[in-house]
Amino acid sequence: MSVTFAQGFAVGIGEAGIRESGGPDLVIIASDRPAAAAATFTTNQVRAAPVLVAVDALRASRGAARAIVVNAGCANAGTGSAGLDDARAVVAATARHLGCASDEVLPASTGLIGSRLPVADIVATLPTLELRRSDDAGSAAARAIMTTDTRSKEHAVAARLADGREIRVGGMAKGAGMIHPQMATMLAFLATDAPIGPLGLAALLRPVVERTFNQVTVDGDTSTNDAVIVLANGAAGGPRIDAGGDLDVFADALERVCRELAIAIAADGEGARHLIEVSVSGGADDGAARSVARTVASSSLVKTAVHGADPNWGRIAAAAGRAGIALDPDRLRICIGDLAVFDGAPLDFEQARATALLRDPVVRLSLDLGAGSGRGTAWGCDLSAEYVAINSEYTT
Amino acid sequence: MSVTFAQGFAVGIGEAGIRESGGPDLVIIASDRPAAAAATFTTNQVRAAPVLVAVDALRASRGAARAIVVNAGCANAGTGSAGLDDARAVVAATARHLGCASDEVLPASTGLIGSRLPVADIVATLPTLELRRSDDAGSAAARAIMTTDTRSKEHAVAARLADGREIRVGGMAKGAGMIHPQMATMLAFLATDAPIGPLGLAALLRPVVERTFNQVTVDGDTSTNDAVIVLANGAAGGPRIDAGGDLDVFADALERVCRELAIAIAADGEGARHLIEVSVSGGADDGAARSVARTVASSSLVKTAVHGADPNWGRIAAAAGRAGIALDPDRLRICIGDLAVFDGAPLDFEQARATALLRDPVVRLSLDLGAGSGRGTAWGCDLSAEYVAINSEYTT
Repeated sequence: MSVTFAQGFAVGIGEAGIRESGGPDLVIIASDRPAAAAATFTTNQVRAAPVLVAVDALRASRGAARAIVVNAGCANAGTGSAGLDDARAVVAATARHLGCASDEVLPASTGLIGSRLPVADIVATLPTLELRRSDDAGSAAARAIMTTDTRSKEHAVAARLADGREIRVGGMAKGAGMIHPQMATMLAFLATDAPIGPLGLAALLRPVVERTFNQVTVDGDTSTNDAVIVLANGAAGGPRIDAGGDLDVFADALERVCRELAIAIAADGEGARHLIEVSVSGGADDGAARSVARTVASSSLVKTAVHGADPNWGRIAAAAGRAGIALDPDRLRICIGDLAVFDGAPLDFEQARATALLRDPVVRLSLDLGAGSGRGTAWGCDLSAEYVAINSEYTT
Repeated sequence: MSVTFAQGFAVGIGEAGIRESGGPDLVIIASDRPAAAAATFTTNQVRAAPVLVAVDALRASRGAARAIVVNAGCANAGTGSAGLDDARAVVAATARHLGCASDEVLPASTGLIGSRLPVADIVATLPTLELRRSDDAGSAAARAIMTTDTRSKEHAVAARLADGREIRVGGMAKGAGMIHPQMATMLAFLATDAPIGPLGLAALLRPVVERTFNQVTVDGDTSTNDAVIVLANGAAGGPRIDAGGDLDVFADALERVCRELAIAIAADGEGARHLIEVSVSGGADDGAARSVARTVASSSLVKTAVHGADPNWGRIAAAAGRAGIALDPDRLRICIGDLAVFDGAPLDFEQARATALLRDPVVRLSLDLGAGSGRGTAWGCDLSAEYVAINSEYTT
């Protein structure tokens, strides 16, 4: 189940000829009523045109939105002011089709960097997009935004508030790396029918993204187009849940969807055979633990060791040591799966068992830093010769 | 010419059976008189025993040293307090052999992480090391500290001070990455006969290392054993050169040796076919320019693009954008060799010529940030399937 799982959301899917390979490449995610919107965007200083336009729209609308319009096949990045005009033209056409204001439409693009959007084709195609609410339509939308992804990414959960109301959160994402062969990017779109305002939504989204999408790494490269956008249309009904226990219920539902989508991105990393989950405990605080988890998960040497099923705890310790936080090697403990391999000093562990644990499709590494109660998890993938092939043989 | 190029320095080379593959694995670099010493060490929080012992020795001796003792085949890292005892035993035996104090001997190790040094064998071998001053001996010492290196790394320059005195700086290094399959590491040893005190030497070394060794990247992993040590024994004679124009002459000579050794490490990166030199101008300051250069040189996507001879400027721009400094894409200019490919917007360049430039063994990428007069250069290498093979097929 995808973004259409939440009540009051529909998707429209079209083919505008943006992808060279053909197929659906244009998606609208629309709420049937005004929705609160919150988003996080790439921290890259080179930001794609749709990111700049979406930031402006969110500011102008004060966090209100009706729709997201996404295309695959062209990132509309590195395209200067012409690219901004292109993104605005697509937004305007979408707003006309839906009968809403332009600043209620948030654009996103993924694909080739440096090429221009075929605006005329997109503008001609948009009015033909039929809005549908089915699970099948939601799944088709998740497929339509794929680039080098090998699997579509969607997840949805329902949760119950204190007064018995059900709220739903649905989401879809794309990404086979923080960045893709042609700067195609990590995008995630979340739709909820929970009644929550834009400020509350924005306050929730940032820490959730910190713990989920920002803890995914494939190749350490941050894209120009990364965007996570959540729309909350309140279709679940009832009073706003801007505070209290219900807010926790909603935050938990949002985090569950984000976590599953984030893990799906790591598992689909370019050329990857293993999902690597790095869990860190004993940090001075959660931030320190997350930082160590992310550094271990992004180490080329850890990634190649997992690829080769080599229980090389030294690479894990060395990666932890360069995470930018204070670390006492004497208090460090490292496990591969449930097998302890280092505890202040090398342990005499069974190599064959360690190798077997590293051959699992999901490889779990855990570190205890012995410094406090901070916790954090990161997700990555192994580094394979296929990654090199995908990224060196694919020519612009 | 290697570390024996400077007057008053000799090397001793021995075989202590530390390497499984056999061959010379133990080197002493000795000055025939007390020398000023300065060093920079890994910033990794997990620091190898020899690094900790060398830091203590430099502090105790206030920057005076007679010798460096280096072994290949065992990093003596992750070995706890036992490893510290081992390093101290090797230092004590070296001091006995040379007739100097223990805190005048600086240890360094490179090789497998987590295994113990064969101290008894090393202590038995040390007294047999004969000190030699020839170029051949210097080159043999550079070879003896190699691990996954495919080429030995040495460089030397002579310079003339204002009063006509000649000073010499010789150096040797090892490293096929910031970190190697088994945490073997980047080590560099420099010997000069220039008359300079330890404080002046330390003040010079840090910025030189910032511009040279710290600007080399192979895989983004920082080792536990990295060390750059310079010894200045004053054998060139004459008054101290702690200030003035002569200090500039010496600083330049030191930087030239460090730069060549740093470039040699990048060019010998594991599995690499190309040296990548990234030159950045127009930074707000030198630090900003260096940061962008290092980020571009370490991007997996830039490295694979070079490997595939793909003139993918978008990856270069995206890497520059995540370097942690303010960057205005509209003012950004990118060249591959002398071919401009981006200037605020994509340029219409000749693809075939760009591809040809990327097939050169030395690939030069240059960026102008358009923000000031800061400059910086970094050196890296392409990312190949061989890198993955070297690091995933080599099992501890």
